[in-house]
Amino acid sequence: MPKPRWKSWPAWSSTALAKIDPLMRRQISGFSNPTIKRLKSLREKKHRKREGHFLAEGLRILTEALDAGILPKLLVVAEDVELHPLAQKIEQATVANGGEVIETNTAIIGKLSGKSNPQSIIGIYEDHPTPLMELDRGASDIWLVAQALRDPGNLGTILRTGDAVGAGGLILIDDCVDPFSVEAVRASMGAVFTQKIVQSPWQEFTDWLSSGDGQLVGTSLNTDADYQSVQYTSPTFLLIGNEAQGLPAEYEDACDILVKMPMMGKADSLNAAIASAVMAYEVLNQRRK
Amino acid sequence: MPKPRWKSWPAWSSTALAKIDPLMRRQISGFSNPTIKRLKSLREKKHRKREGHFLAEGLRILTEALDAGILPKLLVVAEDVELHPLAQKIEQATVANGGEVIETNTAIIGKLSGKSNPQSIIGIYEDHPTPLMELDRGASDIWLVAQALRDPGNLGTILRTGDAVGAGGLILIDDCVDPFSVEAVRASMGAVFTQKIVQSPWQEFTDWLSSGDGQLVGTSLNTDADYQSVQYTSPTFLLIGNEAQGLPAEYEDACDILVKMPMMGKADSLNAAIASAVMAYEVLNQRRK
Repeated sequence: MPKPRWKSWPAWSSTALAKIDPLMRRQISGFSNPTIKRLKSLREKKHRKREGHFLAEGLRILTEALDAGILPKLLVVAEDVELHPLAQKIEQATVANGGEVIETNTAIIGKLSGKSNPQSIIGIYEDHPTPLMELDRGASDIWLVAQALRDPGNLGTILRTGDAVGAGGLILIDDCVDPFSVEAVRASMGAVFTQKIVQSPWQEFTDWLSSGDGQLVGTSLNTDADYQSVQYTSPTFLLIGNEAQGLPAEYEDACDILVKMPMMGKADSLNAAIASAVMAYEVLNQRRK
Repeated sequence: MPKPRWKSWPAWSSTALAKIDPLMRRQISGFSNPTIKRLKSLREKKHRKREGHFLAEGLRILTEALDAGILPKLLVVAEDVELHPLAQKIEQATVANGGEVIETNTAIIGKLSGKSNPQSIIGIYEDHPTPLMELDRGASDIWLVAQALRDPGNLGTILRTGDAVGAGGLILIDDCVDPFSVEAVRASMGAVFTQKIVQSPWQEFTDWLSSGDGQLVGTSLNTDADYQSVQYTSPTFLLIGNEAQGLPAEYEDACDILVKMPMMGKADSLNAAIASAVMAYEVLNQRRK
């Protein structure tokens, strides 16, 4: 059954609290307004899944979306704030694209954002996971793959790094945190709109990977191979394990190569987002030479 | 005036709620117990400053402290939980060192931790910033320097990366987030105990730096110098700017070299902790060759 989409929402039902202003903005001032409640529910994964939409906050991230040709279905802006020219452009494009604009107070924007000091613009976007079978592995030399990633900040940061190194996207294996959570979207700084995002069980992923080109590289303590001693072939799939456990043994066994980064200190591991970035820059640097 | 230290606390004043058990543990079960309240207050910076102590949570981090020869003044353990042998070792060492052990319920531990699913052991440690003038710059080839860092997770992650690359420590310039916050300590995974932590105004830092050896390297968009084209000399001081603004122009001007990392994507920046790690591994890799 197809997910209900934004346009299937009932016509604005809260006319008592809303009025349309000449700028085509709908003004809402009440926390209990059903639209506000519905938007706020998108802070929770189950509601995002049901609605097929997510929240993105702040001019920088919304501008990345615009540059990627992606417009919000619904835009929430702060009242009594003169919008930055870029935000005006996003508002105009949203309306031209058939989207709605809601103007409200900063208290409500704070509730949607979850931050005490929120930005003055929030967009509601359709989520856009890419089915694994539709992924064009030849579109990039580097792909990032994360297994059972738990921290939304790490996930968003990995997306951001992926964008920086020219990766094609991030493949999420097993039960990862939701890439469309407010925290992940925020940490991605907009890369959630430019990186392909795939969610796949491990077995499906390895089946798909073996059906074409691709070097699967895992970072591990169970190897003597220094990460700079290996030649990475294109496309390289960099596999990062869970923050606390690292990769399961059978996942390591499935890798074409295991490598390790030098650890000069007391601890034996790096933060997952850091490890993926150091690896990804090594792959990029080899390609640059 | 010297800060009041832990030992200056009044003798246990809440005898009505506490009793000493044969294991030398004091049992506390009440949220309103003054000791619990005082411990919980250490979640806030102003109370940490006043007390000169901070909270660290979890066996892994406490073990890093033990390995570094640092014991908590006070240890909080969950009741009805058989401690891991390493935790038992920490408890014994704490008592032998004149520290106290409090046994309490998981609800109170959750309040101290701020996590819904807390670990069963929390240590209270003396904070230990190093005065800049006491820093031995020759002790390491790499030092990390951060300016106006705002995110405690970034700060802790930078400490953790510093440990991994064999850096000597982290110098915090201007108004950075507190390195002894619960979030920073957690993200450091124990590196808060192994890395020197210095807090210094910019002018003092540059005066100190110019009084001895040291190459100050800034990452910036305002340069054409690729970060791999530069030869880093020892000791290298890697300067990372604020998450949103990057480095102020005058700080860039003070650097011996400005470098940039390749950015292949839509965005023009990396997360601050990622950028510092990619830089630090490049310096380490040059030294390894």
